[in-house]
Amino acid sequence: MLSKKQVKEARERALTFFEKANIILTKEEKDNIEVADFGLNELEQTGLEVVTYVNTDRCCAKELVLFPFQTCPEHRHPPVEGEPGKEETFRCRWGKVYLYVEGEPTSNPTAKPPKGREHTYTVWHEIVLNPGEQYTLKPNTLHWFQAGQEGAVVSEFSTKSRDEADIFTDPDIKRIPVIEE
Amino acid sequence: MLSKKQVKEARERALTFFEKANIILTKEEKDNIEVADFGLNELEQTGLEVVTYVNTDRCCAKELVLFPFQTCPEHRHPPVEGEPGKEETFRCRWGKVYLYVEGEPTSNPTAKPPKGREHTYTVWHEIVLNPGEQYTLKPNTLHWFQAGQEGAVVSEFSTKSRDEADIFTDPDIKRIPVIEE
Repeated sequence: MLSKKQVKEARERALTFFEKANIILTKEEKDNIEVADFGLNELEQTGLEVVTYVNTDRCCAKELVLFPFQTCPEHRHPPVEGEPGKEETFRCRWGKVYLYVEGEPTSNPTAKPPKGREHTYTVWHEIVLNPGEQYTLKPNTLHWFQAGQEGAVVSEFSTKSRDEADIFTDPDIKRIPVIEE
Repeated sequence: MLSKKQVKEARERALTFFEKANIILTKEEKDNIEVADFGLNELEQTGLEVVTYVNTDRCCAKELVLFPFQTCPEHRHPPVEGEPGKEETFRCRWGKVYLYVEGEPTSNPTAKPPKGREHTYTVWHEIVLNPGEQYTLKPNTLHWFQAGQEGAVVSEFSTKSRDEADIFTDPDIKRIPVIEE
């Protein structure tokens, strides 16, 4: 569970990254940045800060912040209601992001899974995204990603986002953040 | 028809707007900016400069540049192959854009249709987008938009883009640009 103080601090910190990337947000967007710790209570290591611009039945666009070395843990987007799983394009806007997908393993991947949870990571084909670079992920493909030492800002263009349907490899993960009352 | 010189100059000019908006593009993207004059040969007045990041069967993301007072003319995205028409979200990143959609007419709209083509514009409900502001357009809705005096950079998040299926009110328009050999 995240405390209100943790959420407030993470939002403030995320804003400094949006500023570095020159991404302009409304006050409402700033006040409602989603802080996801995936239920692991190790936000600095495993987590994601998200602004969802739009999410309809047909398409979705988000802006993601990853703090330095912060990891979005391994997961996939399965088929739902007869539709193929979510299709995602990640476009790096600022910083650097290491993306890992199913495929031929990279011999010396740059990023390492979060400490103590290595056993829940299996995907090792590395794609490095610098600002202006992007990668489109096929539906239902296992993937995870980690920011480099400066952190990262990443645009995500996708089909409908159904976070509650995501399947994480780590059984301890809860995708929907719980914040203290 | 656009000359190669016109295309080159419009691309170079568009890049200055992407720079103002701090949007980072790859060399390939810069070299291939789409310059659309809609077959009217009045690019300064009626036209659009486009980088398509991704366009799959399911979703699409583009970055648009409009020069000062440049207009994307009135059109709609009809149903195609049993799917509803294209659904679009416009998010202003830099400058200002005036968007006109079907609905209750605005008494004193800010933008005016391009000179000599006023008779091919019918939609007058005004939405003003400043940086960080956005609007989601329902499928098959007539719309047009024009940049303010500084020009504009606009992100477009949408379902699959099928430019060739767009229906323009102005019968003289050809959406797919023709460039001299």
